[in-house]
Amino acid sequence: MTRLICNISISLDGFVAGPDATLEEPLGKGGEQLHEWIFGERRWREQHGLDGGERGPSDEILRESIELPGAIVMGRRMFSGGDGPWSDDPNADAWWGDDPPFDVPVFVVTHHARETVDKGKTSYTFVTGGLEAALAQAAEAAGDKPVAIAGGASLVQQSLQAGLLDELEIHVAPFLLGGGVRLFEGAPPAALELVRVVDAPNVTHIKYRTGGK
Amino acid sequence: MTRLICNISISLDGFVAGPDATLEEPLGKGGEQLHEWIFGERRWREQHGLDGGERGPSDEILRESIELPGAIVMGRRMFSGGDGPWSDDPNADAWWGDDPPFDVPVFVVTHHARETVDKGKTSYTFVTGGLEAALAQAAEAAGDKPVAIAGGASLVQQSLQAGLLDELEIHVAPFLLGGGVRLFEGAPPAALELVRVVDAPNVTHIKYRTGGK
Repeated sequence: MTRLICNISISLDGFVAGPDATLEEPLGKGGEQLHEWIFGERRWREQHGLDGGERGPSDEILRESIELPGAIVMGRRMFSGGDGPWSDDPNADAWWGDDPPFDVPVFVVTHHARETVDKGKTSYTFVTGGLEAALAQAAEAAGDKPVAIAGGASLVQQSLQAGLLDELEIHVAPFLLGGGVRLFEGAPPAALELVRVVDAPNVTHIKYRTGGK
Repeated sequence: MTRLICNISISLDGFVAGPDATLEEPLGKGGEQLHEWIFGERRWREQHGLDGGERGPSDEILRESIELPGAIVMGRRMFSGGDGPWSDDPNADAWWGDDPPFDVPVFVVTHHARETVDKGKTSYTFVTGGLEAALAQAAEAAGDKPVAIAGGASLVQQSLQAGLLDELEIHVAPFLLGGGVRLFEGAPPAALELVRVVDAPNVTHIKYRTGGK
């Protein structure tokens, strides 16, 4: 059985994006702050052709999250540029450029059938049968490795609501956003298992086993 | 300037009490689970005349939260028995019995003037001038020590909304409640400072400096 995992940055008050997303602020007001912890890490800088960077606990967490999955499932808006309002063109190109950071097969949940797109080690396959159909294809592609849900928020919410996730790692950023998109919106009551806490500067990484199905 | 602190147990999805509080479930559906981490700790058992108990990191956290404050502010419902619906009698006796766990002056925010009640080292003074009046009296009583807001939820929410808190320590319990009373309801956007993370079995203690006023 393929393990389904997700890791996602979240504000202390539970939002994965702020309110009032616009073209200039695709993650909503204050939403960018949730990802600040990533930009100084060596693994992120390597991926973007930059020297230097931290090699502390957050760098380890970042490496793990990038290197662990054998396939990725994401929403159509994340494919074409986050959850922003500009990505309504169903034929929009990938936002992630010619050298995307995934390096594994990516399955994009969409209503719009489309040919597979290859970008180096990353391929984008468009799945019109919904989340569970995409997960099934991703599981096949992943072999023995886990499948990661990369986002956007609504896909993570769906997987929580349907009890599909096996592991959830949250990166709690020390901000209150005061509004926006709640990660746990609609998630049913559940007892989770606390797997691991990693204390790092300006962010707290907490991993839970969620049960899954 | 007196430091205002608060420490409170919270579900992973951000609730400090579950939905549908009743006489039988004063913390709402699933709300009791948030406090499970406390009951096995030595400090809690000592206070309740019981032997044994854990002496791990959560016991240290619990000791600190009990021994640090020089005075406590709480809401009237917490005084008379949590946030439950049965505590609407303004002259209700303290829920905390003849040997209450506070051992410092307690200031109860209420609409109903009442004589001070003494129970051993704990005294209950009733303040009708609102949260800030209670905080001023508590600061005077606390001397050099901090004042703690003990709850209920609405008092903690008020202090967050008004930017009055200096430090907030949350005890994140590995449960989703799916509804209830949100700690950060109405809290404005803010950048906090991550002070300390303590990894313990079945609970994660995270302390933030919130700025205060």
